[in-house]
Amino acid sequence: MDNINFSSQIEQDEYFMARAITLAKEAEAIDEVPVGAVAVRDGRIIAEAYNTREADRCATHHAELVAIERACAALGGWRLPGVTLYVTMEPCCMCAGAIINARVPRVVYGAKDFRFGAFGSALDLAEIPLNHRPEVVGGVLGEECAKILSDYFKKKR
Amino acid sequence: MDNINFSSQIEQDEYFMARAITLAKEAEAIDEVPVGAVAVRDGRIIAEAYNTREADRCATHHAELVAIERACAALGGWRLPGVTLYVTMEPCCMCAGAIINARVPRVVYGAKDFRFGAFGSALDLAEIPLNHRPEVVGGVLGEECAKILSDYFKKKR
Repeated sequence: MDNINFSSQIEQDEYFMARAITLAKEAEAIDEVPVGAVAVRDGRIIAEAYNTREADRCATHHAELVAIERACAALGGWRLPGVTLYVTMEPCCMCAGAIINARVPRVVYGAKDFRFGAFGSALDLAEIPLNHRPEVVGGVLGEECAKILSDYFKKKR
Repeated sequence: MDNINFSSQIEQDEYFMARAITLAKEAEAIDEVPVGAVAVRDGRIIAEAYNTREADRCATHHAELVAIERACAALGGWRLPGVTLYVTMEPCCMCAGAIINARVPRVVYGAKDFRFGAFGSALDLAEIPLNHRPEVVGGVLGEECAKILSDYFKKKR
């Protein structure tokens, strides 16, 4: 994919969040909790993933964690300088911890996760003095991200 | 491996922690931060791993996280009922989050990680009301686990 020239940060953030939403819908299509994630560097997608916890029978296969692993493979190292991670739902402790471990400088999420979110809801790992503190932006296309999740859980009940 | 009859919980805990220490030494032999992890169910090892963050160039390849993924594969699902996870160092946020996500009922660690440990040191995820709260026991063969780590970091300086 070629680089795209965005006229503003919010335009760029909404563009890549829209891609993360498309990935969330792929998760939903296979009956997974619909969460998608995209790793972007220099205006280009370097990795993406959606939640496959049920399909892979694996507790760690959240969208963000797998996207981080694929981004490490793409960049050839465990640090992810210059990367923005877009994810449709606020990361859990595991994924927020992976973001910190990979030194991801910027995280953009859509919907809040009031029960388990680890960047401001259940707790805030960006406020605990660890060895890395990402910039975190929430609420980008937040209503659309939240609706995909609430529609999914309504159908499951 | 056959099941072993242990006369006490602490005897069992020290037995499997000794195996985790052996794995930590394998990590050290390839110049990784020496941490090892073992997943045990019904007195049998079902998965083990050591830290391969540098070798795999992957931020998520901590001993505990990989051991959890292998334990999910061994049990065929993302939940790990009846599993005790032994790890030579207190888990970080990512690994503590993975333990909670996998519903691991019991965690036994060796050395405290005063800077980044997420089960009582930097923070305590077992005290935050999430959807699962593991029993956490620290300090099992703690001095030996701590010495392996401090010797490694002394050599690196």
